[in-house]
Amino acid sequence: MRCHGTLPGMNILPVRVYYEDTDAGGIVYHANYLGFCERGRTELLRSLGFENKSLMERDGMLFVVRHIAADYLAPATLDDSLEIHTFIKELGRTRIVMGQSVVRGGKALFEMDVTLVCINREGRPIRPPDHVMRAFQESMERDKNG
Amino acid sequence: MRCHGTLPGMNILPVRVYYEDTDAGGIVYHANYLGFCERGRTELLRSLGFENKSLMERDGMLFVVRHIAADYLAPATLDDSLEIHTFIKELGRTRIVMGQSVVRGGKALFEMDVTLVCINREGRPIRPPDHVMRAFQESMERDKNG
Amino acid sequence: MRCHGTLPGMNILPVRVYYEDTDAGGIVYHANYLGFCERGRTELLRSLGFENKSLMERDGMLFVVRHIAADYLAPATLDDSLEIHTFIKELGRTRIVMGQSVVRGGKALFEMDVTLVCINREGRPIRPPDHVMRAFQESMERDKNG
Amino acid sequence: MRCHGTLPGMNILPVRVYYEDTDAGGIVYHANYLGFCERGRTELLRSLGFENKSLMERDGMLFVVRHIAADYLAPATLDDSLEIHTFIKELGRTRIVMGQSVVRGGKALFEMDVTLVCINREGRPIRPPDHVMRAFQESMERDKNG
Repeated sequence: MRCHGTLPGMNILPVRVYYEDTDAGGIVYHANYLGFCERGRTELLRSLGFENKSLMERDGMLFVVRHIAADYLAPATLDDSLEIHTFIKELGRTRIVMGQSVVRGGKALFEMDVTLVCINREGRPIRPPDHVMRAFQESMERDKNG
Repeated sequence: MRCHGTLPGMNILPVRVYYEDTDAGGIVYHANYLGFCERGRTELLRSLGFENKSLMERDGMLFVVRHIAADYLAPATLDDSLEIHTFIKELGRTRIVMGQSVVRGGKALFEMDVTLVCINREGRPIRPPDHVMRAFQESMERDKNG
Repeated sequence: MRCHGTLPGMNILPVRVYYEDTDAGGIVYHANYLGFCERGRTELLRSLGFENKSLMERDGMLFVVRHIAADYLAPATLDDSLEIHTFIKELGRTRIVMGQSVVRGGKALFEMDVTLVCINREGRPIRPPDHVMRAFQESMERDKNG
Repeated sequence: MRCHGTLPGMNILPVRVYYEDTDAGGIVYHANYLGFCERGRTELLRSLGFENKSLMERDGMLFVVRHIAADYLAPATLDDSLEIHTFIKELGRTRIVMGQSVVRGGKALFEMDVTLVCINREGRPIRPPDHVMRAFQESMERDKNG
């Protein structure tokens, strides 16, 4: 994993660090970067026209995390102003890999590749609806051509 | 509110403080006492024979918080071994008031009165089923007679 | 407690609801409103020129919660766009009471009065520095005159 | 990664799933498995005679996460009774790799390799004190011989 710079299809979400995000070590608690990144993925979805709630209620589908590989490069601290960078890295038939990083002042503090699958109400993996996949495909191609 | 001592119908749940519970002030984050207390209420329910999941799935009901009044008396810190004390304080037709405290070495660090109501799947307040109310009633009477 | 409308000295912080904020009941977990409100108090402080981190590192002081009284009026759900309203309600010698609400579409879902005290590095209550108290006083007066 | 069975030096921590651990998808929020695992590592440390708080205050050292690779195999749900399995997998000069899994009824729901490093008060990586490394070494050898 390396810092991905800024890509045309990338979503950039500003996040502020509050007390709730930190721990007694004086830094952001390691699990909370995953929460930040989930906010970032949600905003990437929203920028493509999708909301988790309506995907669940109308399409009966839910993205769930299957695998993560994450590097903690430097700690974020209280009051930091961060950016969450999210882009679509790979698109399989049912798997989506997103590349994400938590950035402060242009420097990545945390980088993660997260593999998502789509499940239905019964928890069984399904292929996401075509209009969702198309939007992902287009976002990924903007990055390649950008 | 005062420390309630130990009552016969009281549920006592041991809780350990981990990094995830603390903040950069070096103490337990104030909102996390509410999480500890929710664990305590769940264990009081369980000790009376009820589980949140089956209440939701079988009886279609859910306890939700309507009001809290809480005093922060002294901070808990990393690695502390705590007890969550929970007892039923008042029982209305649809409202239940529970008294709760977070205790370390016999000393209350946090005290809260929490008012709960029962709602159905549509979010409307309902009277909890008779067998639930009876179990609550009996727990409260054990405290009075104890 | 009642909805306070909008006051001149009030801080309004937009907050989006993500999966991390919700629970299996399908609504925002009750303790997380306290986290939202802490973000709101932090932003009120920041708007007055103060940051938690520098208050702690330079002035050796920390605001801690002493008491909360909170009403849960209606649940927030996934993807909701909320506002956190925060204003200074009372100013004692060492105690500060803030009024806060979590608002969606002009309707308060949650209201809280929170009493804060200022402590030093040893955890002892202290009177906040004059420049902090003056800024609080001015914010409160803007509300009264507004 | 595969399920590691039970090893002689392995720490097994029982964890109950509460509302606070779940999200609106009805399952445990993905980031919270990392919190469960951190509880497990803390208890492994404690079983070897060390506490995070005294390591920080007396030895001026802190274990921080450098890398995680995690597989989400099946979801945990409300009221589940889980076990967190933690063992020492590799021991470098300054790096420690722990293998962890979240297990329900003998079946792994989540598996993670986590790489930790030890830092001092200034945030610089240090070699953990000899008595800590010796205890880790002995725990790892119990697993190999077991």
